[in-house]
Amino acid sequence: MTPEIIETLRKEIGGDKVHTSDEVLDARRFDYSVPAHLRDWRGEELARPGVVVRPESTAEVQSVLRVAGETRTPVVPYGLGSGVCGGILSDPSVILVDLSRMNRIREIDETNLLASFDAGKQGLEAEEAVAALGLTIGHWPQSIAVSTVGGWVSTRASGQFSTAYGNIEDIIYSIEAVLPNGDIVQLGKAPRAAAGPDLRHLLMGAEGTMGIITGVTFALRRKPEERAYSAYYTPSLSAGFEAQRTIIQSDWRPPVMRQYDAAETGRNFRDFTAESVQDRGLLLMVHEGPSSRVEVELEAVDGIAKRFGLEEAPKGIVPHWMENRNHVPTWQQLFEGGLIADTIEISASWTKIEAIYDEAITSLREIDAVIAASAHSSHVYRTGINLYFTFVARHDDSADMEATYLECWRRVMQATARHGGGIAHHHGAGRLRKSYLVHDLGETGLSLLRTIHRAIDPQGLMNPGNLIPDA
Amino acid sequence: MTPEIIETLRKEIGGDKVHTSDEVLDARRFDYSVPAHLRDWRGEELARPGVVVRPESTAEVQSVLRVAGETRTPVVPYGLGSGVCGGILSDPSVILVDLSRMNRIREIDETNLLASFDAGKQGLEAEEAVAALGLTIGHWPQSIAVSTVGGWVSTRASGQFSTAYGNIEDIIYSIEAVLPNGDIVQLGKAPRAAAGPDLRHLLMGAEGTMGIITGVTFALRRKPEERAYSAYYTPSLSAGFEAQRTIIQSDWRPPVMRQYDAAETGRNFRDFTAESVQDRGLLLMVHEGPSSRVEVELEAVDGIAKRFGLEEAPKGIVPHWMENRNHVPTWQQLFEGGLIADTIEISASWTKIEAIYDEAITSLREIDAVIAASAHSSHVYRTGINLYFTFVARHDDSADMEATYLECWRRVMQATARHGGGIAHHHGAGRLRKSYLVHDLGETGLSLLRTIHRAIDPQGLMNPGNLIPDA
Repeated sequence: MTPEIIETLRKEIGGDKVHTSDEVLDARRFDYSVPAHLRDWRGEELARPGVVVRPESTAEVQSVLRVAGETRTPVVPYGLGSGVCGGILSDPSVILVDLSRMNRIREIDETNLLASFDAGKQGLEAEEAVAALGLTIGHWPQSIAVSTVGGWVSTRASGQFSTAYGNIEDIIYSIEAVLPNGDIVQLGKAPRAAAGPDLRHLLMGAEGTMGIITGVTFALRRKPEERAYSAYYTPSLSAGFEAQRTIIQSDWRPPVMRQYDAAETGRNFRDFTAESVQDRGLLLMVHEGPSSRVEVELEAVDGIAKRFGLEEAPKGIVPHWMENRNHVPTWQQLFEGGLIADTIEISASWTKIEAIYDEAITSLREIDAVIAASAHSSHVYRTGINLYFTFVARHDDSADMEATYLECWRRVMQATARHGGGIAHHHGAGRLRKSYLVHDLGETGLSLLRTIHRAIDPQGLMNPGNLIPDA
Repeated sequence: MTPEIIETLRKEIGGDKVHTSDEVLDARRFDYSVPAHLRDWRGEELARPGVVVRPESTAEVQSVLRVAGETRTPVVPYGLGSGVCGGILSDPSVILVDLSRMNRIREIDETNLLASFDAGKQGLEAEEAVAALGLTIGHWPQSIAVSTVGGWVSTRASGQFSTAYGNIEDIIYSIEAVLPNGDIVQLGKAPRAAAGPDLRHLLMGAEGTMGIITGVTFALRRKPEERAYSAYYTPSLSAGFEAQRTIIQSDWRPPVMRQYDAAETGRNFRDFTAESVQDRGLLLMVHEGPSSRVEVELEAVDGIAKRFGLEEAPKGIVPHWMENRNHVPTWQQLFEGGLIADTIEISASWTKIEAIYDEAITSLREIDAVIAASAHSSHVYRTGINLYFTFVARHDDSADMEATYLECWRRVMQATARHGGGIAHHHGAGRLRKSYLVHDLGETGLSLLRTIHRAIDPQGLMNPGNLIPDA
C-alpha cells in the first residue's frame, strides 16, 4: 500500500473516511473464523489491511473500486465481520472496504412488501425497522445482531425460520452492486422475470469476489397472525427424520423445525430432560400463519409425530430455545478453558443424511482430543435436510489446537462428500471450505466459476484468496 | 455449412443422427413465434439450418459442440420448438441440435422426491411418469405437451400452478449441461448450498446462449390430498387485485389464482356470464394441499373476497378452465381469418400494475387494426403480480400484419417500462424482447450479461443473435 494510493483515496472520498490508525486496522484483520482467532489469541501477529475506507454512499464505493482498479490494488469488502469461514483475511497490500457506515434505510413499501437498505445496515436494525410497521424480513440468522444485510446476500445466508420463509435467495428482491470495473448494477426489477439469466446469483454467495454489494431490497412478509410451538422427544434420529420428511412432503411448513441428537438434547435442554428421556433426541417446531391454518397444522403435525413414535415434550422447550438461540460463548472463552470448537453445516438428501451423520460423528470421536461431537438439523426441504455438526476438542497446549481443528473439518467434509451431500449449507465457503468446493461443483464447475470470475474481475483484485480455488 | 463439417458430425455421432433432408430441415426453421409463422404462411422462404443433429446422449452433444468449436460453426439448440419469442431462427450456417431424442427418464427417487430426465423429454411425459407414482413436478406451462423439460429450464418457464409451487427456478434441483468448450457440468448437488454463486442460474434463462442443457433433475411434490375450486366475479380489476394481494400477503397460497378483466371474462367464459354480470371480471382459484388446510383456506379466501366486494361465481367455471386451459387456436387459423394475435406477459409491483394495464390496453386500442385488447393475471407474488396481455388485430392485406404486430409489442413493452414493471414474466426474451431487455437490466446489467456470455462462449457460437443485444 503506497502513500499515494491512500492520498488518492482521501481525495476521492474524503479524509475522514480513510483510516490508517492501529485501532481501526487491528479491528479488521479477520472475521469470526476460528483459526484466525486462535492465532490472534495465541499472540501471533496477524496481518492488517493497508488502509481501511468507510464509504457512506454507493458513489464512494465506486470511487474506491476505480482507484483500486487503476492502481491494481486488492480490495476486501467487510460488513460487521461475523463470517465464520475465513472470508476476511487482511494483508498490508489491501484496501479494506468497511461498509458499516452505509447503514441507511432507503425505503419501506408497505403495499408491495419491499424494503431497501444500504448493504451495511445491521440485520436486527433492518428487521426492527420493518417490524415497527407490522412486517418482517423473515430472515433470522444466529448472527442477526452482528451481521449486515449485504453480508447475508454476499454469503448466501439462511435464517432459523427458513423452512417456511426460504433462504436469502428466496427473500432477496434486488441487489445493487459496484463491479470491479466501477459499473453500478441494479439487478432484480420485478416480482419475477424471464429476462435472461438471473444475474443476482453472480453476487449471491460470491463472498466479495465479484464486486461489492451496496444495497439490497427484500421481499417482506406481514407478521403472522399466530405463532404456536410444538416439541417432541424422538426415539431415534431416524424416527425424527422420518417425521420431518413426512411433515414437509405433506406440504406442511412450520418455519422452524429442528431436530437435536441425544447429545445436544442433553447439553442444550438439561432442564427439560428427565431421567426417563435421557437417551432421546428432540424435535422442536415453530408454527406461524393465519390462526386457522396454524391450528390444523398443529393437529396434522401431532398425528405425524405420533405415527413415528415421537412423544410430546414440554412446550416450554421452544420458548426456551427462542430466548437463548443466539447466545454462544466466544472463541476466546473456549480457548481459555483449553477448548477449541466449531460448527459445520452441510446438507443432503433424506436417504444420505444418516450415513453422513454416522460417519462424521464416529470419525470425529476417533480423534483423541475430541470430547464432544454432535449434530442437529435446522433447515428442512422436500428433497432433504441440513445437519449442523458441533465438535469440541481439548488440548492442554494450545499449539496443538489448530491441527485438530482442521482435522475435524476434514473429517466432516469427507463424510459429507463420500455420501454425496453438499459440503456447505449456509455459512458460505470462505477459505475454510475452499479446497472442498470441488465436491459440490466438480472440476468443470470450478473451472466455470473461475471463468466467470476472471471475466468480471480480470485483474483478480476482489477479495483475492477467498472462495475460489486456484486451478 | 461445409460438407466436411457434416461428414465429421457423421463420424462423431453416427450418420443416422445427422440429417440434411428437406423435411427435417424445414421442420426446424423457427419456433412458435408469430413473425416467423406469418412470413412462412405468406410464402416467404425462411432460412433452414445447415444440418440437423439428433444426439441421443450427453457425450454426443459434447462431440457436436467440440466439432462446432473446432470449426467455428454456430449452434442452435432445439427442444420441441414451442417457444414464442423467436429464440430459434435457423440459418444455413448453423448446426441445429435437436434434443428430442434425448428423452429418457433417468431416475425417479420417491423418498427424496427427485426426478431426473434427459433434457429432451417431453413435459407431459415427464409429469405422467412421476404421476404414476403419486408424485407431481408441479410445473404446468400451457405448452406442457409440446415443450421439453430442458426447454422449461432454458427459458425460465412458469407453470399455471406457480403461485404455490413456484416457477422453474424453484422446482429445479440440478442441471447437467455441455458448455461451449465441451465441458460437461453438473450443477446443483444438495437440497440447498452456500458454496459460491449458484451457477445453475447462468443456464436458466440463457435460451441456448451459454451451452446446451442435457439433463435436469426436479424437486417433486407428493400429489395433494385435496383439490378444491373457488370463483368470484370482480366488480373491478382494482378490487380483484386487492383481494389477491390480501390473500397472498396473508400467507394463503392457492396454487392457481387468475383474474380476468371484463373483456376476457366475456370472451372465455361466455356460458357463465349472465346479463347481470356482463361488466364483471372473474377471479378463479384452485386450492390444493392437506384436506384440513384446503378447508380453512377456502373459508379465509371467501372472507377476503367478500371484503373487497367480490361475488361468488358458479364453481363450474374452474373445472371448465381446467379442461380448456391449454387449447389455443393455431397462428395459421388466425391468419386465415385475417387476424394476427399474440399474448405478452409482464410483471410488476401491486402499485404499478394498474397503470401498466391502463396504458397498455388504451394504447393497444388506439391502433386502428386492433379489434381486441385484454388481459388476465396468472401468477401472484407477495410483491406483485403478472399480467398476460392478449391482442388481436385484423388486416385484409396480410402484408400489413407484421408492422401492426410489432407495434402492439412496442406499446405493451413501453407501458411496462414507463411504469417500472419487468418486461418479461415467463415466456423468455428471445429475439422479440431482446431490444427491451435494457429496461430490466440497465446498460450496466446488459454489459455484465455480455461479459459473462463472452467468457463462456468466446467464439460467439451459441444461438447467436438470440437474447443478448449487441453493445
